[in-house]
Amino acid sequence: MNEQIPTEPNAATEAFKQAFRRHAAGVAAVTGLSDDGRPVGFTATSVASLAAAPPLVTFNMARVSSAWPAMFVGNRVAIHTLGPRTRHLAQKLAADNSVRFDGDHWAPGPHGVPILTGVTSWMLGSIIEVHPVFENAVVVVQIETGELGDVDEALLYHERAYQRPVAL
Amino acid sequence: MNEQIPTEPNAATEAFKQAFRRHAAGVAAVTGLSDDGRPVGFTATSVASLAAAPPLVTFNMARVSSAWPAMFVGNRVAIHTLGPRTRHLAQKLAADNSVRFDGDHWAPGPHGVPILTGVTSWMLGSIIEVHPVFENAVVVVQIETGELGDVDEALLYHERAYQRPVAL
Repeated sequence: MNEQIPTEPNAATEAFKQAFRRHAAGVAAVTGLSDDGRPVGFTATSVASLAAAPPLVTFNMARVSSAWPAMFVGNRVAIHTLGPRTRHLAQKLAADNSVRFDGDHWAPGPHGVPILTGVTSWMLGSIIEVHPVFENAVVVVQIETGELGDVDEALLYHERAYQRPVAL
Repeated sequence: MNEQIPTEPNAATEAFKQAFRRHAAGVAAVTGLSDDGRPVGFTATSVASLAAAPPLVTFNMARVSSAWPAMFVGNRVAIHTLGPRTRHLAQKLAADNSVRFDGDHWAPGPHGVPILTGVTSWMLGSIIEVHPVFENAVVVVQIETGELGDVDEALLYHERAYQRPVAL
C-alpha cells in the first residue's frame, strides 16, 4: 500500500473521478419556489436518506444553481423519484434553467411547490439546515408529506448514461 | 393535488419510506480509525459527490454507529466503491460491529486507515465537516488520494436486495 499521499490537487481529483465512475446513483428531481415565487428545480444524483424518524433527506447542490434561491431554512421543497419512463423529467430539469418549467410536465402542489407529473413518488418537506461548503451546499429536508406515483423501475445514472437496476 | 399537509408523524414517515422504496442507491463502504486506534467502518448507501474541485464527498450515518468515534474533523477515512463480486464486504461491514474487521478482507492503507480488498475503487480523505442532525450526522470529506481497483459492475441496493445496473 502506498504510504505517500499525493498532495497535488490533480491526483485527488483523478481519484475522485475514478471512484464515481465506479459508483451508480439513483436519479431524483428537486423542485421548489425561489424567494421571488418562481418555480425552480434540478436533477439530483445525491438524494440520500439521513433518518427515518423524523424522516430526513439530504441532497447536495452547486450554489450557482438557479435553484439556490429556494434553498433557505423553512422553505418547502419536493423531492421526486424518477423511473425510466420519466427520464425526460431528468433531462428537462438538467437542461437550461430558463425552460425547465416550460410545459405541462408539472402542476403546483402543497404550498405551491411544483410537483412533477408521472414520477414514481414524491416527498415534500421543510428545509431545516443548509450547509455551504466552498461553492456547493448540503441541504437537509424534514419530510412532511408525499405520495406514491406511477409504477416504474428506478432510474439510475452510471457511466454517463441513464440505467436501471436488475437483480444479481 | 391535495392541499392538506398531514401533520401526523406517521404520514410523513410513510411518505419517506414509500419514496425510498422507489429509489435505488449505490453501495459503498466507509472505514477509518476511531480515536483509540481501532478499525471501524460501515456499509453506506448515502455516499454522494458534493464537488469535483476540490473533490468533496458526503455520507450520512447514525451517531449510534460503532464508526461514530472516527468521525471528527481532521481524521482520515476511506470510501470504497463495491461491486457484485465484493458484496460480501457490504454484508461484512453491515454485520455485528465486533466482527467487521475479523479476517483478511482488509489491510492498513495510508495513515493506517483500513483499505478493503477487491473493491472497485477507494478514495481517502480528511473529514472537513461533521453536521449532527438529531440522532444522525452528515459527514463531509475532502479527498486526497485513491486508487482504481478490480473491474466489476457497480453494486446497488434497491427493494431490500443487492442489485446491479443495466442499460435502458
